Amino acid sequence: MIKAMYKYHEECGVFGIWSGTGSASADQVAVGLTALQHRGQEAAGIAVNDQRVIRYHKGLGLVHEVFDHDELTRLGSGRIAVGHVRYSTSGNNTVINAQPMVVRHVKGQLALCHNGNLINSDELRRTLELEGCIFQTTSDTEVISYLITRARLKAPSIEEAVRAAVRQLQGSFSLVMMSPAKLLACRDRFGLRPLCLGEMPDGSPVFASESCALDAVGARLIRELNPGELVVVDDDGMRSIPCFSDHRQHALCVFEYIYFSRPDSVVQGISVHEARARAGAFLAADHPVDADLVIGVPDSGLDAALGYAEAAGIPYGIGLVKNKYIGRTFIAPTQKERADQVRLKLNAVSSVVSGKRIILIDDSIVRGTTSKYIVQLLKDAGASEVHLRISAPPFLHPCFYGTDIDSDHSLIANGHTPEEIARMIGADSLAFLSLDRVYALAGEELSGHLCAACFDGNYPAGVPTVADKDRFEIS
Amino acid sequence: MIKAMYKYHEECGVFGIWSGTGSASADQVAVGLTALQHRGQEAAGIAVNDQRVIRYHKGLGLVHEVFDHDELTRLGSGRIAVGHVRYSTSGNNTVINAQPMVVRHVKGQLALCHNGNLINSDELRRTLELEGCIFQTTSDTEVISYLITRARLKAPSIEEAVRAAVRQLQGSFSLVMMSPAKLLACRDRFGLRPLCLGEMPDGSPVFASESCALDAVGARLIRELNPGELVVVDDDGMRSIPCFSDHRQHALCVFEYIYFSRPDSVVQGISVHEARARAGAFLAADHPVDADLVIGVPDSGLDAALGYAEAAGIPYGIGLVKNKYIGRTFIAPTQKERADQVRLKLNAVSSVVSGKRIILIDDSIVRGTTSKYIVQLLKDAGASEVHLRISAPPFLHPCFYGTDIDSDHSLIANGHTPEEIARMIGADSLAFLSLDRVYALAGEELSGHLCAACFDGNYPAGVPTVADKDRFEIS
Amino acid sequence: MIKAMYKYHEECGVFGIWSGTGSASADQVAVGLTALQHRGQEAAGIAVNDQRVIRYHKGLGLVHEVFDHDELTRLGSGRIAVGHVRYSTSGNNTVINAQPMVVRHVKGQLALCHNGNLINSDELRRTLELEGCIFQTTSDTEVISYLITRARLKAPSIEEAVRAAVRQLQGSFSLVMMSPAKLLACRDRFGLRPLCLGEMPDGSPVFASESCALDAVGARLIRELNPGELVVVDDDGMRSIPCFSDHRQHALCVFEYIYFSRPDSVVQGISVHEARARAGAFLAADHPVDADLVIGVPDSGLDAALGYAEAAGIPYGIGLVKNKYIGRTFIAPTQKERADQVRLKLNAVSSVVSGKRIILIDDSIVRGTTSKYIVQLLKDAGASEVHLRISAPPFLHPCFYGTDIDSDHSLIANGHTPEEIARMIGADSLAFLSLDRVYALAGEELSGHLCAACFDGNYPAGVPTVADKDRFEIS
Amino acid sequence: MIKAMYKYHEECGVFGIWSGTGSASADQVAVGLTALQHRGQEAAGIAVNDQRVIRYHKGLGLVHEVFDHDELTRLGSGRIAVGHVRYSTSGNNTVINAQPMVVRHVKGQLALCHNGNLINSDELRRTLELEGCIFQTTSDTEVISYLITRARLKAPSIEEAVRAAVRQLQGSFSLVMMSPAKLLACRDRFGLRPLCLGEMPDGSPVFASESCALDAVGARLIRELNPGELVVVDDDGMRSIPCFSDHRQHALCVFEYIYFSRPDSVVQGISVHEARARAGAFLAADHPVDADLVIGVPDSGLDAALGYAEAAGIPYGIGLVKNKYIGRTFIAPTQKERADQVRLKLNAVSSVVSGKRIILIDDSIVRGTTSKYIVQLLKDAGASEVHLRISAPPFLHPCFYGTDIDSDHSLIANGHTPEEIARMIGADSLAFLSLDRVYALAGEELSGHLCAACFDGNYPAGVPTVADKDRFEIS
Repeated sequence: MIKAMYKYHEECGVFGIWSGTGSASADQVAVGLTALQHRGQEAAGIAVNDQRVIRYHKGLGLVHEVFDHDELTRLGSGRIAVGHVRYSTSGNNTVINAQPMVVRHVKGQLALCHNGNLINSDELRRTLELEGCIFQTTSDTEVISYLITRARLKAPSIEEAVRAAVRQLQGSFSLVMMSPAKLLACRDRFGLRPLCLGEMPDGSPVFASESCALDAVGARLIRELNPGELVVVDDDGMRSIPCFSDHRQHALCVFEYIYFSRPDSVVQGISVHEARARAGAFLAADHPVDADLVIGVPDSGLDAALGYAEAAGIPYGIGLVKNKYIGRTFIAPTQKERADQVRLKLNAVSSVVSGKRIILIDDSIVRGTTSKYIVQLLKDAGASEVHLRISAPPFLHPCFYGTDIDSDHSLIANGHTPEEIARMIGADSLAFLSLDRVYALAGEELSGHLCAACFDGNYPAGVPTVADKDRFEIS
Repeated sequence: MIKAMYKYHEECGVFGIWSGTGSASADQVAVGLTALQHRGQEAAGIAVNDQRVIRYHKGLGLVHEVFDHDELTRLGSGRIAVGHVRYSTSGNNTVINAQPMVVRHVKGQLALCHNGNLINSDELRRTLELEGCIFQTTSDTEVISYLITRARLKAPSIEEAVRAAVRQLQGSFSLVMMSPAKLLACRDRFGLRPLCLGEMPDGSPVFASESCALDAVGARLIRELNPGELVVVDDDGMRSIPCFSDHRQHALCVFEYIYFSRPDSVVQGISVHEARARAGAFLAADHPVDADLVIGVPDSGLDAALGYAEAAGIPYGIGLVKNKYIGRTFIAPTQKERADQVRLKLNAVSSVVSGKRIILIDDSIVRGTTSKYIVQLLKDAGASEVHLRISAPPFLHPCFYGTDIDSDHSLIANGHTPEEIARMIGADSLAFLSLDRVYALAGEELSGHLCAACFDGNYPAGVPTVADKDRFEIS
Repeated sequence: MIKAMYKYHEECGVFGIWSGTGSASADQVAVGLTALQHRGQEAAGIAVNDQRVIRYHKGLGLVHEVFDHDELTRLGSGRIAVGHVRYSTSGNNTVINAQPMVVRHVKGQLALCHNGNLINSDELRRTLELEGCIFQTTSDTEVISYLITRARLKAPSIEEAVRAAVRQLQGSFSLVMMSPAKLLACRDRFGLRPLCLGEMPDGSPVFASESCALDAVGARLIRELNPGELVVVDDDGMRSIPCFSDHRQHALCVFEYIYFSRPDSVVQGISVHEARARAGAFLAADHPVDADLVIGVPDSGLDAALGYAEAAGIPYGIGLVKNKYIGRTFIAPTQKERADQVRLKLNAVSSVVSGKRIILIDDSIVRGTTSKYIVQLLKDAGASEVHLRISAPPFLHPCFYGTDIDSDHSLIANGHTPEEIARMIGADSLAFLSLDRVYALAGEELSGHLCAACFDGNYPAGVPTVADKDRFEIS
Repeated sequence: MIKAMYKYHEECGVFGIWSGTGSASADQVAVGLTALQHRGQEAAGIAVNDQRVIRYHKGLGLVHEVFDHDELTRLGSGRIAVGHVRYSTSGNNTVINAQPMVVRHVKGQLALCHNGNLINSDELRRTLELEGCIFQTTSDTEVISYLITRARLKAPSIEEAVRAAVRQLQGSFSLVMMSPAKLLACRDRFGLRPLCLGEMPDGSPVFASESCALDAVGARLIRELNPGELVVVDDDGMRSIPCFSDHRQHALCVFEYIYFSRPDSVVQGISVHEARARAGAFLAADHPVDADLVIGVPDSGLDAALGYAEAAGIPYGIGLVKNKYIGRTFIAPTQKERADQVRLKLNAVSSVVSGKRIILIDDSIVRGTTSKYIVQLLKDAGASEVHLRISAPPFLHPCFYGTDIDSDHSLIANGHTPEEIARMIGADSLAFLSLDRVYALAGEELSGHLCAACFDGNYPAGVPTVADKDRFEIS
């Protein structure tokens, strides 16, 4: 079994916009990034290419914390603007790792925004170091920067350089980049992470991790980038370049539907809300139970709960309320007990759940402690029965492509039957979504085109090699 | 007609806890205040009475911004702890007006937390000034502090002093106070603002503006304070003192159900969620329309939407998604258009609303601009019809009791029929909740016991007198 | 003996400016306060009276930390502007105690800036509390505010009210105040703390604690206020009002010359630099020693060192350099030893002191530890002898009038002869200025007109009464 | 004539300490850097090598602003610790340019601290870019990092790699570096910037830009590094490696004596205070004038003033007082006039200068405006004559080696005789130090071993080449 020991994840949001008239602005990027904020709250950055001079700013925090009116005004607008929001596991959360990474090379400047995770970055880094490269950050983006700029020495154009570099990368990546004259977007050959193309009302192209960011800036979703596709925008217009001659099967991360993406986004042609509602309907079909009310754990369980309710013909209720003012840093000194934290974050609506048999929908069980306290919360509020339904299978395998599922995730699911877990958390019954249902989550056309490695252990883009053994322990 | 010209509102949250064993802590108050954060996000304060020494801290911002681990540790715990979250109209948002107000008088210290708004504070202030009092803040709380401490000179006890002071106050107030040895809670004689009593597992009393704060600290809701009731807690236990010999009819602010309180709170024995769902059901009965889906404007329109859907037998849908990361300060420089701001804050789920006839539930129409853009958002996402239903009547009258409804609120409702407004905002139809339905919002037993002055102009506690003419213009 | 147990000191700087043309600005006050910054670095505040509306801002920190460009612009200008810098002993350093104190009373608003310390504030506070007054701060200024505003109820004018109030105050105070229409400045009947009157080039009056603040704003020093004098400025011009019918002997704090005031200030007609140089000359006359070089401990010992050098005919040298970048908060974790801190703050110039017999001039010896390390620093740098001369007598008595000399100050001087102390600190000899010389410090005309209570125990304005026994312990 | 168009200066302070027992601490570096703070106030950074793991932190601001107790504790101690304080011209003041620069290369990590300025960095950068290097900062340090780490690929040791890299560098540099096992210090072949070696009481070596930093940590000055010398410290002890086979004449920047270094530092064996005093004595000999008093412009003019006074037999006086509380950011909105700023920063002591013929010593005249206002200040205070003596010659040439003298410096000196300038600034006479005297500033033994290019245009290390033409314009 492979066990992730240490990993720097790059669950992020990327955004880029082109304007032939020089009106691609830091403002627009800030709006786009705010719509992608759920993909990363640790750091944010924006770079604007004005007259081939790149102005940029990055910082730790939410988009509106890093960028105030003055900073956005200073960045202004130009022909190209890109941005990034970053999620990071603790320890790597320094501004030095924030993106866009802006580097100067022989042909000018390059700004890179990256979402994904390479599995051969240690090998690549080692090779580059042997060629005299130095690294100032711990991010994969610096590795990619080197590969592109070094390829550029021989390549006739930045797009050819990107193409050459991309062919050396293994793992997941969605890239949005800006050279002095071009906006480039590229997706790994399995299409593991999402990346879509939109169009502003004036016809200008926009790239974003999710369609909700296109909506936010008033753009129209055109399509997703294909696996292994590089799209280049410059004064001559937009063109698509395949990075590979042979095509691999699309393997979009199914967790985008289950958890990552916003429900109002359309990912790979499929509404995230609908995929979640479908998961709820599958649960209703596969794990029915006689009950009075279906409720979801806000916010990510609500869509599946509504799907379950409709499929089962059981009323949907608002039985849990979430406190939206809890800061990332709020930990009262004596609130040592997880129960207290759950109680502050979530509260039951007694009048809704009292005396009722409840079907409760959540998107995951981690250690089981949170689930236990939510079940307790509902029972304290008078629920007569609580039947927990999880809109995903249990996590059994580490993710190497950018999803931060630590090994703890499998603790309760590993070695326990659903019945045992139900007993441990005080639920009257518990059921997970089956693997077959996960494959069908995004509808028939995407069946077989999703990566569900964290559930089934099938890694479409491979696993880290021996060179990475200091980061992953394979036993 | 009376027109509010200038007003400092005190829509706030108050909290107080007693512990015979000295374990009433700043932590507990911070948790309680975080649960009440929706009642005020401008300032927060906590005071702890430890061995009769009052330690306190207040600041501008959210509870978790004002109080970090170090500050909570410094405040520690004692026999009594109180706290306050404050909402304020701009211009008065200085730390000097933050609460608890802690004053030293001849009998020691007094900490006051106040939610409400006096209508005779200018008169009282004038009288006090003529007696040599000086004022360092612009808040009603300072007036109340004077009345209590001056009454204390003659009164045999702090509770008698509070009682004497309270009899001079006109308007709305829910007070939680702390003297060196006593925790006191008091409600105005009409019970305009909520204030409830709870009990910790060890039997210690807790007071809070809403029951959701009791839930957060693990306390059980016992009851609401009666109009004009003063509850005193000290070493001898808890006792109730009526402040007035004659009783006035309870006139709880109906807006607590419509907007202020959290849906998981029980106010005056009635679930806020249920009251909102009932409003939705009333709308379904009174203003039916043939449609495919009912959706609510998140977050405050969701409960009423579910109530409408259930009553009308039309499916409930999640058709709008709210961005939860928008800071209070985020305004992109070029996002001058309100449409852009709405689009960043709310997004439609196309797969849900496309091709559907939508019933949209919101809790108010202010200037109409926001409503207009939400309607547009849904139509852009493919909705074939949008029928707007407002879960409250139009605002026609100013509130003098602490609700921040400025005169603009009535702009679109004033002088326009619902049909005209519907046309103006692009909705296919529009209907408001009727006055009769508002009176019944909290169920039969509270019918006739609610203040709906902002809708019907009946002011149970009177209107400001001539002395206040510099603050209100009555024409 | 009287021992100070607890004391809130008010060693501060006050400033006020009048402009008939409405150009008295927050900027000017900021400049004046920056020149007075040495009198208090804990808090700063400015109030501007524009069209009888008082705008004000206060905060913790240095003037330029509390007031940025935006804040000064917001405060703008008006007919009157006043300001305050505050020194405070730890524990009372909250913004609530910052000044100007701005209060609203029956006749409008009053802004007060106070430098000094009352000895009967507890009595006054008690009396006021018995009359129903409440206190929100721990500063004497709030007591004075009450006395003035209460007197104003009966007095025909604010100046009469101030006069009546001032007659009740015991201790030291220099006040600069602003009513809606008047700028007022007043000094206690012994003139313990300084307060001078200046004139802008356009003839507008300015008040400041020291003349260096007049220089900074381009004003000319006219004169010091007399003991017990109240000066009122309004549209009718400026007039002087004596607060008392009988006059007491002037008793200006001698420590203003020794330590408080800036050397470029002229206090009570006497240059501070000259007074310090005179102290040096006295030491040269009274305690001569055969030596090669005279050096001062920067910055406050330099003037006396030059005076000594000139009088003794021994060269003056720059033998110690002070690090000007040491923040108030810099304490390296392992720099536990005071020696390390002294070494970081001060360094010897070896080329200057090496092989020399040094006369070292400082303004005080406190515990002796700092002196010990400075002597060591010089010897390590090669000085063959170090003869320490202190430009003041030993502190033997507490100050009740606003000088923060804690009882520790006398530790080493109490019970030890200069010879013993010299041995303890490693100096080759040690001498203090004598009492007679202190009386003559400011020249003949001020002889007998200085308060030197901290040296001689003669308290011109009395000592705190029994009511203050919780603050001072008299044994 | 060569005119500097754009330049990023690296006037900085570097510090490094070794401890065989693992007690080289961030605290010690913080103390050392605080002593070097006058060399750079824009950014500070510290790196600690603990068990071959490098922990580091950098930030904008003063040492005590960037490093609080918690951060120093987190960094802790190890076998090696280095640090840097940075001065930067505006525009480059981002944290990304702060030092130490910590890079990971094939042999591990390398931390670099650099003071100086390369003249061939553009060429080197270009060459590196052509070899596929990318640049994330605009500092020379990144260029040096690349040269060293690339040389390391072939070199048998880090010291050999440094030696190979250093031979490619043209311009000025003093480097303190840390590899996993070694502390290295190196100085350019002309010794343009200072760098000295000290010894802790336990014999551990310390490197610092100036000896005052050695004093601060309790170390003893051993010697300065030789031009072109590399000193390596590791477990085997300390050894010196010459980087070049042929030796160039030492050309220490004379401005270190005139302005940069602290007066208590010993630079190249010469006391900075003594060099300044000697400049004053030279001025007294060359440009005597009949006067009553010599005063210096604090702080940098005081040493020369004392030297002048002693040589001329004219009394030295404290005639100007500097406000030490003026923040870097303080600019009152209406204080547009430079006169007002000078008045706030400096004040004359009237009692000292009144009626006197003054000799005023300053270290430079820039545009002349400041000098003009200081002369005015003295005359307003009653000085009958003011004779200005500048302790350096006029700036006539740009510095390419790290001194931030912009072309404006020469404005008033260019094309005007001293007599003309005296008239323009209102001085009764004006004289500069002559070139011959500058060469003799540091005594006989250093005569001919100083770089005075900014005065005489002789550039020992050459001028920037054509590749740099986008940064410098040579006409």
